[in-house]
Amino acid sequence: MAIQQGFAVHALSFDYGQRHRCELEAARKVVRALGITDHIIAPIDLRMFGGSALTGDLDVPKHRDPLDPNGGIPVTYVPARNTIFLSFALAWCEVLQAEDIFIGVTAVDYSGYPDCRPEFLEAFERMAGLATKAGAEGTARYRIHAPLLRMSKAAIIRAGIGAGIDFAMTHSCYDPAADGLACGACDSCILRRRGFEEAGVPDPTRYREQ
Amino acid sequence: MAIQQGFAVHALSFDYGQRHRCELEAARKVVRALGITDHIIAPIDLRMFGGSALTGDLDVPKHRDPLDPNGGIPVTYVPARNTIFLSFALAWCEVLQAEDIFIGVTAVDYSGYPDCRPEFLEAFERMAGLATKAGAEGTARYRIHAPLLRMSKAAIIRAGIGAGIDFAMTHSCYDPAADGLACGACDSCILRRRGFEEAGVPDPTRYREQ
Repeated sequence: MAIQQGFAVHALSFDYGQRHRCELEAARKVVRALGITDHIIAPIDLRMFGGSALTGDLDVPKHRDPLDPNGGIPVTYVPARNTIFLSFALAWCEVLQAEDIFIGVTAVDYSGYPDCRPEFLEAFERMAGLATKAGAEGTARYRIHAPLLRMSKAAIIRAGIGAGIDFAMTHSCYDPAADGLACGACDSCILRRRGFEEAGVPDPTRYREQ
Repeated sequence: MAIQQGFAVHALSFDYGQRHRCELEAARKVVRALGITDHIIAPIDLRMFGGSALTGDLDVPKHRDPLDPNGGIPVTYVPARNTIFLSFALAWCEVLQAEDIFIGVTAVDYSGYPDCRPEFLEAFERMAGLATKAGAEGTARYRIHAPLLRMSKAAIIRAGIGAGIDFAMTHSCYDPAADGLACGACDSCILRRRGFEEAGVPDPTRYREQ
């Protein structure tokens, strides 16, 4: 979407000790397919703090309803993760003399993570202007873009298909098998699967549980 | 100061590709002397982005007046560094079920770094409440404490002496020699030196340039 809007894109991924580290290989493929030549994978092992199912301390919940309003924020929440991700993006953005940071969060079909919500993104954007030399000197006005924020998974999939994305390259599962097969039962698989169904698009994901 | 206020302290330092990496050994000594048993040194090599004299791209300016109001923000500014530091602290804080983060910035005798100013800290604190599960659920109210914020270097030194700190253990220089000797000419050395003079306290620092 950033490319469609005319931006020159520099891609940033994080090797943060996630169970689904195979998402980095997926990110490399997507970056290559889009013709992006600058891709940093930042090693920041958040297992040093623990406290999340995604970084290995706890089991990934299965077969829940991710959209249950009484479900609470699940243990797959990684403490301050998107704050850390955006902080690194802000650092690189300032070095590149860029102003625009894109993040792929959604607050529609999601698990209720606090750092996917618009109020968080707005507060981060405000803080970014005060945190940086370019912001303080008025030579840059940082903007956090979250084009998926108010889109359902079905709408995201349709937009991706429209942009020529091959979703077979992509990865969502929180708890894949060693061979990369998706579990089919974590929040991320459930939301992805429903999204393909609702969009009426064949789901190319290889699931362990059918 | 946090200990004096009765907090149980967990210490966090960053191995971020800084020239003055020997500050980590100083941090270890201070942590040990204070009886703190939990100290994480987070490896986050910011040389991946560059753009700062502190992470090696550029020379450290010498013999400037750090307090010259026309001096601008010097190249020793590390893009978004304190934002990144505080983001990691926030992650650990949430895992520890703590609420209070202390950071040793000052906005009096300093080089004008934007991420040492009270308005930045306030914006970060506000964002932290929205970024986290504990903040969103109302089970924690994160506070960023900067007890040195409005203190001169002389006042900081006097407070340290009063708390029994042996400043011979500490390190400030941005550009130390391989043996750890301070350069005596960078902003950090100049401010430290003046601080000891103004405080009327003998400076235990070993300087290369006298």
